[in-house]
Amino acid sequence: MPRRDTRSEIIDAAVIILGRDGPDGFSAAALAREVGISKANLFHHFPSIDAVPVAAFERLITQSLERPIPRGATLAEIVAAFGAGTFAMVETHRDFLNAYFVFSARSLFDDRLGEDFRVSGDVLMEAMRRAVAPLVPAGREAAVARLVAMMLDGLGFHLVAFNRGPDVEEAWRLFLELIQTQGKRQ
Amino acid sequence: MPRRDTRSEIIDAAVIILGRDGPDGFSAAALAREVGISKANLFHHFPSIDAVPVAAFERLITQSLERPIPRGATLAEIVAAFGAGTFAMVETHRDFLNAYFVFSARSLFDDRLGEDFRVSGDVLMEAMRRAVAPLVPAGREAAVARLVAMMLDGLGFHLVAFNRGPDVEEAWRLFLELIQTQGKRQ
Repeated sequence: MPRRDTRSEIIDAAVIILGRDGPDGFSAAALAREVGISKANLFHHFPSIDAVPVAAFERLITQSLERPIPRGATLAEIVAAFGAGTFAMVETHRDFLNAYFVFSARSLFDDRLGEDFRVSGDVLMEAMRRAVAPLVPAGREAAVARLVAMMLDGLGFHLVAFNRGPDVEEAWRLFLELIQTQGKRQ
Repeated sequence: MPRRDTRSEIIDAAVIILGRDGPDGFSAAALAREVGISKANLFHHFPSIDAVPVAAFERLITQSLERPIPRGATLAEIVAAFGAGTFAMVETHRDFLNAYFVFSARSLFDDRLGEDFRVSGDVLMEAMRRAVAPLVPAGREAAVARLVAMMLDGLGFHLVAFNRGPDVEEAWRLFLELIQTQGKRQ
């Protein structure tokens, strides 16, 4: 099997194990068993077990940003699609997100993991910047992209941690109204 | 010493220990020793050791929301003061916030702690709603308050987890421009 596919299978397995068994059930042995490979092979693809959840989260977020966007969409429509991706991800992967939250907290006490986390954040910010750039006046791309990313993180956090879905949806609709004022005509 | 003061001292000690020793150094024994009380006395004030970080975080956030606000301030000025509180809290209590992040992650796997966390969230949302209500058209208070809270959480998260201060400050200034459009004349 080509190396690339095994890496991808490891990431898929990490999403499954973290969602099903939580952070305490996540280990190199469990991951190797789920994929059907040796631990040596696992560490051929990842430098450490802790690097896998970061890669798994990055994949889920990337997927949530890859929602179909109609041609000629406005800035608000694009950001709405990202928000819909976040709502859907919380709906379908809540258990994984809970487990991931534990890992991202650990990254604050681990220099190498913290660096993986920051690099992953920069990759996602760059994807966001490219998505909004055509719809935002020149010079504002970075600020709008960061604002949308901060808002999506706040959205995900409030959906996962508090039981206040309708309030959060109303606040999100208000944000879409506000962000549209930053859009330019195409 | 009156009961109320001891509770307050326990919370202060929790902020110190979590910031200095991290989540692994935080225990009932360490907390009782720092305050100079018995563990029995500690559990007279808190139902469990895990309830203390939630109370400590609530106090820090409440303090960060208690920034001086000039008479006749606009909505953007009030929200800017809350943001300044978040920037200052990250500056002065980064180590505590890292440790708190670990506790809030654990709360996702603990029903009772999760409930403490949600109750604390509702208390803070109510404080936010009261702060913005006089400056927002009737009927929009809850949505604006939730939006500001989600944004402040996203702001705090990006400040703590990523090393991108100037980008985050620019995005925050953009948010203040946008939120001002929701303000009404006093």
